[in-house]
Amino acid sequence: MLVLINGSPEHLVSSSDRGLNYGDGLFETIAVANGKPQLWQSHLDRLNLGCQRLQIPTPEPQLLWNEALGLTQHCNCGVLKILITRGIGGRGYTPAYNPKPTRILSLHSQPQYPSHWWIQGIKIRTCNTILSTNPILAKIKHTNRLEQILASMESKDPNTAEGLMQNITGQWICGTKTNFFLVQSKRLITPPINNCGIIGIMRNYIMAKARNHGWQVLECPVETSDLMRASGIFVTNSIIGIWPVQSLDSRQYDTDALPLNLRRLWLQDITCTPLTTIACDD
Amino acid sequence: MLVLINGSPEHLVSSSDRGLNYGDGLFETIAVANGKPQLWQSHLDRLNLGCQRLQIPTPEPQLLWNEALGLTQHCNCGVLKILITRGIGGRGYTPAYNPKPTRILSLHSQPQYPSHWWIQGIKIRTCNTILSTNPILAKIKHTNRLEQILASMESKDPNTAEGLMQNITGQWICGTKTNFFLVQSKRLITPPINNCGIIGIMRNYIMAKARNHGWQVLECPVETSDLMRASGIFVTNSIIGIWPVQSLDSRQYDTDALPLNLRRLWLQDITCTPLTTIACDD
Repeated sequence: MLVLINGSPEHLVSSSDRGLNYGDGLFETIAVANGKPQLWQSHLDRLNLGCQRLQIPTPEPQLLWNEALGLTQHCNCGVLKILITRGIGGRGYTPAYNPKPTRILSLHSQPQYPSHWWIQGIKIRTCNTILSTNPILAKIKHTNRLEQILASMESKDPNTAEGLMQNITGQWICGTKTNFFLVQSKRLITPPINNCGIIGIMRNYIMAKARNHGWQVLECPVETSDLMRASGIFVTNSIIGIWPVQSLDSRQYDTDALPLNLRRLWLQDITCTPLTTIACDD
Repeated sequence: MLVLINGSPEHLVSSSDRGLNYGDGLFETIAVANGKPQLWQSHLDRLNLGCQRLQIPTPEPQLLWNEALGLTQHCNCGVLKILITRGIGGRGYTPAYNPKPTRILSLHSQPQYPSHWWIQGIKIRTCNTILSTNPILAKIKHTNRLEQILASMESKDPNTAEGLMQNITGQWICGTKTNFFLVQSKRLITPPINNCGIIGIMRNYIMAKARNHGWQVLECPVETSDLMRASGIFVTNSIIGIWPVQSLDSRQYDTDALPLNLRRLWLQDITCTPLTTIACDD
């Protein structure tokens, strides 16, 4: 694993870093294909939104791009992670007046998932751990992720690829590491991300692609009855792209409700998953 | 600052540590007086509760005590911090099956606050940042602290010592770094910590002391009208002990609603704040 900390090839940070002590930071997990970070500007925009919300100075865009490209230029297929913390200093929770953020870029290999998950779909489950509601922390990819960790620990079954999480009033918001869409004929429905959850880069990308291809895309609260009524579900994130859902607990779904050829077409330029690299007759 | 990481005098941790990446950890901030960590067993109990909730292996108690005492034995007055993270490993949010926690103990000098805050009381304010509700994360001192950070950043006024935080339904839960009590004749009222907030070690200690001295102590939800009705308010944490409240926004309070001699008496053995070290006629 290649790591740059504030531009230097290191892999250690101070034990006083506020990221370690309070989760006082933000991150982005970015697909790398053909030597380049994909959907860069969208990731940068979300990172900047997070910095504004948390009042952490935003990293200089050209510097970040140069460091990213330095790590990824010889990488055909991988994952770039950017982690920005508020750095050291302050008294307890109160930060220093002029924080000097810690900037960590690291290059990772792609996680290995079964390739049939992209084609034949995945099994998912409902989680018991709820997502708490706080508009000021919604949308952004901050490093307070205990709820997702606890939700992901609920199942040890390696064949269950993801879990869906509810807010405290019972609406379904997202997966532990993905956003989700319901499919009903040529309509996609995905929950709004105003009070909890992360506004996925792949979520927004798919929404735009679908609209360009004549699909109706709605952001609506999703109740359990909506999950039951949908003909299809799929989950998205920047690294996997799209996984169609085969089953949610005991309920079965049509994994081709969003047709395979469209999933391939929409993702072909921006991911190097089995969906885009396996020949069409697989 | 003295630091021990997994028993070794170091001050650097891996940039892959889950504490840094996801806030996947717990901490304790413990008063040191006369060479010893104070209220040790209470802190250890809360740390263990946190480890159980997050499914992080609990540190071995004797090892932790030995390391703590090694750091504090020559310290007359200070702060011991224990930080336990889940360490390195796992895939994204999902932890490794057998995590090897990172154990960081560090000794700090006492924060310098004006000594009159203990005697004449403090000015506090109400915060706009809310505390989100999630029973699984309530009580424990985990390292997902962005809400407290954002709340503490709302005011730059060095004369405002603390801010009170509400949950989403408008009940007052705690300060950004303290618990609080309302005083009404010989009755103390403090909010329950079941759905959000941290169950303070000093909070529990004061509740027990007060009951022993014939005070009635109630855990009840606190609405704004209760704040307005109280004759006194005080805030507590392990490091400061007790600060009486002079004013909350524009509302004034009787800083001696919990009498000074009782505050001194209750705290004399366990803190080395100005309250317990300044002569009684100050």
